Amino acid sequence: MNISAAVDALSELLGERLSRSKSDLDNHGRSESHFPLTPPDAVAYPDSTEEVSQIMKICNEHECPVVGWGVGTSLEGHALAVKGGVVVDFTRMNKIIEVSPEDMDVRVQPGVTREDLNVDLRATGLFFPVDPGANATLGGMAATRASGTTAVRYGTMRDNVIGLEVVLADGRIIRTGTRARKSSAGYDLTAMFVGSEGTLGLITELTLRLHGQPMAMSSAVCAFDTIDGAVNAVIETIQMGIPMARIEFVDAAGTQAVNAYSGTDFPAVPHLLVEFHGSDSAVAEQAEEFGEIAREHGATNFDWATSEEDRKRLWDIRHKAYYAMLASRPGSRAIVTDVCVPISRLAEAVTETIADIEETGIPAPILGHVGDGNFHSAILIDETNPDERAAAKALSHRMAERALRLGGTVTGEHGIGMGKLGYMRAEHGEAWDVMGTLKQSLDPKGVLNPGKIIPQGE
Amino acid sequence: MNISAAVDALSELLGERLSRSKSDLDNHGRSESHFPLTPPDAVAYPDSTEEVSQIMKICNEHECPVVGWGVGTSLEGHALAVKGGVVVDFTRMNKIIEVSPEDMDVRVQPGVTREDLNVDLRATGLFFPVDPGANATLGGMAATRASGTTAVRYGTMRDNVIGLEVVLADGRIIRTGTRARKSSAGYDLTAMFVGSEGTLGLITELTLRLHGQPMAMSSAVCAFDTIDGAVNAVIETIQMGIPMARIEFVDAAGTQAVNAYSGTDFPAVPHLLVEFHGSDSAVAEQAEEFGEIAREHGATNFDWATSEEDRKRLWDIRHKAYYAMLASRPGSRAIVTDVCVPISRLAEAVTETIADIEETGIPAPILGHVGDGNFHSAILIDETNPDERAAAKALSHRMAERALRLGGTVTGEHGIGMGKLGYMRAEHGEAWDVMGTLKQSLDPKGVLNPGKIIPQGE
Repeated sequence: MNISAAVDALSELLGERLSRSKSDLDNHGRSESHFPLTPPDAVAYPDSTEEVSQIMKICNEHECPVVGWGVGTSLEGHALAVKGGVVVDFTRMNKIIEVSPEDMDVRVQPGVTREDLNVDLRATGLFFPVDPGANATLGGMAATRASGTTAVRYGTMRDNVIGLEVVLADGRIIRTGTRARKSSAGYDLTAMFVGSEGTLGLITELTLRLHGQPMAMSSAVCAFDTIDGAVNAVIETIQMGIPMARIEFVDAAGTQAVNAYSGTDFPAVPHLLVEFHGSDSAVAEQAEEFGEIAREHGATNFDWATSEEDRKRLWDIRHKAYYAMLASRPGSRAIVTDVCVPISRLAEAVTETIADIEETGIPAPILGHVGDGNFHSAILIDETNPDERAAAKALSHRMAERALRLGGTVTGEHGIGMGKLGYMRAEHGEAWDVMGTLKQSLDPKGVLNPGKIIPQGE
Repeated sequence: MNISAAVDALSELLGERLSRSKSDLDNHGRSESHFPLTPPDAVAYPDSTEEVSQIMKICNEHECPVVGWGVGTSLEGHALAVKGGVVVDFTRMNKIIEVSPEDMDVRVQPGVTREDLNVDLRATGLFFPVDPGANATLGGMAATRASGTTAVRYGTMRDNVIGLEVVLADGRIIRTGTRARKSSAGYDLTAMFVGSEGTLGLITELTLRLHGQPMAMSSAVCAFDTIDGAVNAVIETIQMGIPMARIEFVDAAGTQAVNAYSGTDFPAVPHLLVEFHGSDSAVAEQAEEFGEIAREHGATNFDWATSEEDRKRLWDIRHKAYYAMLASRPGSRAIVTDVCVPISRLAEAVTETIADIEETGIPAPILGHVGDGNFHSAILIDETNPDERAAAKALSHRMAERALRLGGTVTGEHGIGMGKLGYMRAEHGEAWDVMGTLKQSLDPKGVLNPGKIIPQGE
């Protein structure tokens, strides 16, 4: 490994677009989470796929680690250069290359953010639905297999990435997939790179599936006496085939935090927020059917919103929930967990988790994309208190083990990064070795985001 | 390579469940297509995953080719043991292990056929939607990434396989995926094995996503003056977000063949068959919206069917279309093509193809899953006429090249097998080498279905 030789060669190649300023290195050494500052040795700002290919050739030759970077919103430290080396920042590769309304797809560079894409799409009547909350880049969302509130209806990045252009460890440029809506022509390389967290290649272009902007939308919030009631309402709604665009769970603690922060007065019990997309009549029918199901499971205090303004008010509450939770314990820092279980085990998982949280005595409100069986708790700790840090880590660990015991996964949407590496063996067994074999075959020198998904030396 | 040593060891292991009878070998040397009889050296009938693992260990040790077998309905010779060796027939592994109505999924062994599964599911209100036409096994459908008429609404096997149990070349048994509806925990191995045609491992168990049986269904057939009219009606229907459960195209020649075979009297022009699934009112609304769009594009002669009986009558026509086409040229054999293009290029692709067909003078009616941009022509040749064979092959070749030129794929749903291997470089470029690298890393001795997807020595 000769990082400095690689960095010298890269500054030859990129000139001022190879940065070594302390502020730049620090900016690319931070994460949204509790991981320590991990500045890389340099930050590269390529303008083109060809340049990314040259960067990879240089780094591979010198065995210098390479880590892709979008806007740094990932929650598990995916983009931290834990072995040093070069961060490749895709800020300058942010063009929307081609929108094809007839095919309902779009070709973009990896540095385009989802919000920029949707602003650009407004006039077309189409939109890109995957919404992880943060205004992440589409390259980063693909690399981490992001999803969010709309996955229950529109799927995750797995379902919405049709094809990719990828630069491999040795600098080769490949294209995966075609613009046809389906294909049986060999291995699904697109799916292999989606969620690979930059460990198999750098994504330099994406072809994404778009969806028609719904003619009508209807949102609602309703209260439940019990978690089981809320979850069973979700299960029955899915079984009835009622197409929910979003269905979010907030527990009693989360609701109280929201009330305090947003000045609302929801009862201090579990709530569901739902949204339906479609034609006026379809949405009205879906809303009514859901209402009936929810009431059968003890739902009360319905608040329906169909105007854009009212819906915005409702979803603002959800979008601000994270800040509301933080504010509920001033000065605290949140350790955000992310597990996903089969829906039949969701009520059990949430109930056990809340009991577990209460035992620790640390506040940890719960939010969930319950249509997917995915939920998060924001464990609110006093960072200066090592006991709380340890208790929070232990709590998070028990949540992951609980998810595995219930047939689920240790990460529904945040990814492995650094935070979940310790669970790969428990979740995948020998399949983890297969991942290691694939990594070894495509990146024999281990230069692509080393230390992620496949631990060094594994 | 020592096939006989492997076969001896296998008959030790399996006794009478290792067959070498000529009839059995011949039955497993046939395909639905024009490929010559290719009997394997032996046929193994394992009872369990553990036995499949032992079979693989023996064959890997002796470098004996192993080819998985469901019911032999694949159309590109996927299951032919072109290098000799052992066919592993999953007939005895045909149990439905566990249906989970709350999670809307099911665990099955690979030898279960889709029709058997759906019969078993009737009482649950759920069904498995992927329908390639033939009553294939679910293991075979996963291995070939099958789809069919319902993919436009429910997706392909890629979208409906949640997890797998796979026996690797060296006999290791791994599990991919979890029963959670989504996960970001590492590489998507499930997607890598789906569509790998038995070249990376043998599927010994599948977890499949189920869907709710729709409350109401409505089907229609309508006539169009032009192909463009039919295709543009499809494009606009998709853009409007009207959820079609099925939308099938039949060209003028196909319609005439159907009339002659089924005694119908549809006008000799292109037709669309559509189906909508949902609640009574949703289906009624969708049907009306589609009708308006279709009429704007020149649709006439609407025939709507909502009762099960009437819908069955309509879809019988579609399901018998293949036989109708064969009957339209008595004594002929069909070479069935399978291309898929971006929908924006579909009208162009079909129109050019029909002109091309007319020039050859060989009858070749066209059927298509137009919601996906996927269409087939049944090239009806007199097998005893070498000129026709050559002309048909040339026609099929031009169709594949046309699909690639238009940004599509040489196979929408039939797979590579033997028939499409020659197009892998043209479709994937260097990405084909990546597939070879993956194959080499997981099957270094090349024992898993050699000669498929990755040519020997490539």
